Amino acid sequence: MNDLSEKVAEILERIRQKRPLLHHITNFVVMNDTANVTLHVGALPVMAHAKEEVADMVSMAGALVLNPSTLTPQWVDSMITAGQKANRLGIPIILDPVGAGATPLRTESNLRLLEELKIAVVRGNSGEIGALTGLGGVVKGVESVVEVEDPIAVAEALAQEYGLTAAITGARDIISDGKRAMAVDNGHPMLKTITGTGCMATTMIAAFAAVEDDYLLAATGGLVSFGLAAEIAAIQAEGPGSFKMALFDALYNLSREQLLEGAKALFLKGG
Amino acid sequence: MNDLSEKVAEILERIRQKRPLLHHITNFVVMNDTANVTLHVGALPVMAHAKEEVADMVSMAGALVLNPSTLTPQWVDSMITAGQKANRLGIPIILDPVGAGATPLRTESNLRLLEELKIAVVRGNSGEIGALTGLGGVVKGVESVVEVEDPIAVAEALAQEYGLTAAITGARDIISDGKRAMAVDNGHPMLKTITGTGCMATTMIAAFAAVEDDYLLAATGGLVSFGLAAEIAAIQAEGPGSFKMALFDALYNLSREQLLEGAKALFLKGG
Amino acid sequence: MNDLSEKVAEILERIRQKRPLLHHITNFVVMNDTANVTLHVGALPVMAHAKEEVADMVSMAGALVLNPSTLTPQWVDSMITAGQKANRLGIPIILDPVGAGATPLRTESNLRLLEELKIAVVRGNSGEIGALTGLGGVVKGVESVVEVEDPIAVAEALAQEYGLTAAITGARDIISDGKRAMAVDNGHPMLKTITGTGCMATTMIAAFAAVEDDYLLAATGGLVSFGLAAEIAAIQAEGPGSFKMALFDALYNLSREQLLEGAKALFLKGG
Repeated sequence: MNDLSEKVAEILERIRQKRPLLHHITNFVVMNDTANVTLHVGALPVMAHAKEEVADMVSMAGALVLNPSTLTPQWVDSMITAGQKANRLGIPIILDPVGAGATPLRTESNLRLLEELKIAVVRGNSGEIGALTGLGGVVKGVESVVEVEDPIAVAEALAQEYGLTAAITGARDIISDGKRAMAVDNGHPMLKTITGTGCMATTMIAAFAAVEDDYLLAATGGLVSFGLAAEIAAIQAEGPGSFKMALFDALYNLSREQLLEGAKALFLKGG
Repeated sequence: MNDLSEKVAEILERIRQKRPLLHHITNFVVMNDTANVTLHVGALPVMAHAKEEVADMVSMAGALVLNPSTLTPQWVDSMITAGQKANRLGIPIILDPVGAGATPLRTESNLRLLEELKIAVVRGNSGEIGALTGLGGVVKGVESVVEVEDPIAVAEALAQEYGLTAAITGARDIISDGKRAMAVDNGHPMLKTITGTGCMATTMIAAFAAVEDDYLLAATGGLVSFGLAAEIAAIQAEGPGSFKMALFDALYNLSREQLLEGAKALFLKGG
Repeated sequence: MNDLSEKVAEILERIRQKRPLLHHITNFVVMNDTANVTLHVGALPVMAHAKEEVADMVSMAGALVLNPSTLTPQWVDSMITAGQKANRLGIPIILDPVGAGATPLRTESNLRLLEELKIAVVRGNSGEIGALTGLGGVVKGVESVVEVEDPIAVAEALAQEYGLTAAITGARDIISDGKRAMAVDNGHPMLKTITGTGCMATTMIAAFAAVEDDYLLAATGGLVSFGLAAEIAAIQAEGPGSFKMALFDALYNLSREQLLEGAKALFLKGG
């Protein structure tokens, strides 16, 4: 644990030094929130979806976030264009399959992205990752209402099938790169009371992946940092409005000391 | 009054138990806020507008919110597709005619939705409802700058013409189902200082209509709850920023006791 | 200084009396924030981008804000349509060239707007204005990462080339109408920690330009008021979340007394 906390703190410091650009092609609901989270963690955000500019924009990015919620087929086409350029340049792609399993369009679009692009990290809730693997889980809108039975096996299956790192977030987050598996126990139930916290967690992972090539570690770092900020925020929150404000404050102020003291991550497999 | 407050508290409890999905096809300005309001009142939000998925998405919803602001003709087409499916499945549609009266596109698009779909509840400001009925009122942008003269008659006219429940919100909210009429006196002037509070009120009505078939009562419950939360929030607000934060906290924490004590609704007709 | 502060306070009072409509065709990230800023400063917001309605909508506006971030060519076409109507009616257009210099699409779209429309005020960061003039500066995403060397000369060059008022915002804001030049020293480093503060500053300028024909003065008024509100907000902020909330409160509460005491603007040239 101590080693892992040190490592997370060190990567966070690297983000704040390098200020990588995170190019998002994401949904309308969370654009403002994920741009803010990007700034608060120390990176630079840009949102751009026009097929005429996505390849240019991603070229200067440290990571590309693809979040096909509020999607249309045209937006998915832009994601493919940006993703192909990112792949050619070795820029990691982080996929957030919001609502996969809820409608055929969402499931198929996410599978298309997984098949046509080399994805570095996928982060979703239990139902979404279940839908992508065919291993259970039920999604209602964008919410996981039935969890998969064995999240470690499901994350591992997705990781192995596409050669990526898969993160299933929930009360306990599970991360697998196909060989190693990690659990993150940071977080707080208040995260379920505001919209877009899954998308924010994905942005956090992207910030870490932009400066750290071990994506299992990057995903762990992003989820530990986000979950710990939520724990700190919840202390004084009186409801979801004040919680969200405090979450953004806590993310921005997150210190090495807080991470060394509060990080809750452990290897379940490998390490 | 006591009976009505009890009823509103009981429906709110039902929302929190059932957690209905509210499918929104809504404008870009308020997507984040209305998704949050949906969660805070106890329901689940999803925003989806692609013609390829709206019929699938609405099938699992408890209510469909149509809010054609920042509209294009393509979005209105998606609203029709989703609405026809909702009608076939008996899922209530809540229409928010933002900016009706401001431009021909907005007025005509809203009239098209009213004519081609069976709408359960329409909620708008005085100028917007005036524009839909041709009975007066003036809209500047999305703001009602001249009120209709007799809101009860105007709400009743719209209700009778389309067989729906019409709510005109303002300092005093007026609701009519064509026979009965209700007044709601909850609310606070600070609601006019932040954007999207009309849209949030519509989402509140949708949450209530998803679990209550008497739409006059559902609209009343949504507006009483939202207005009362605003009153509570205003007590400690120092401006619109802190008011919005406190409004979301108050919505989330709204209790049976607060409703029994603070609800201000009365029948003007019928009951 | 005293005369200038008095003048700014007087224009702010005029906004609150007249409540001009600010028609925005703007990006998805900031729509909610700029609508709120519009309300908080005392004006009325509307967001509308459909080519079928922009000419109608702008006709009732006091100013038109064009912000081609998250742009597509179709949105730029709508901006041209709205802008031509605004030009015919003498309604000032305020352009925010977000991300100019980052991609060819962004640079070319902004130059197209400058060439096909008569713009009243352009507000951008150093890199963006540098990209439009070809006089230096580097943009990464939407952030200025290399500043132009001589901002006064650059602002003047843009102002003279297109016959407009150019504002370069940064630690010190520089404004030029081609003859006169102004510096504004209000503001706070916390503005860099949240997304959209440049776009909010543009909206502030639009509110002032809607009621004041001397656009150098209007730009100064908008930037002084926004910067001073940020200074007030920063006093009690504990991070970017609480800063943003306090910024909205401070904007709404901004008084003549605060402006007379805190405005920091001076003529560098002319006056």
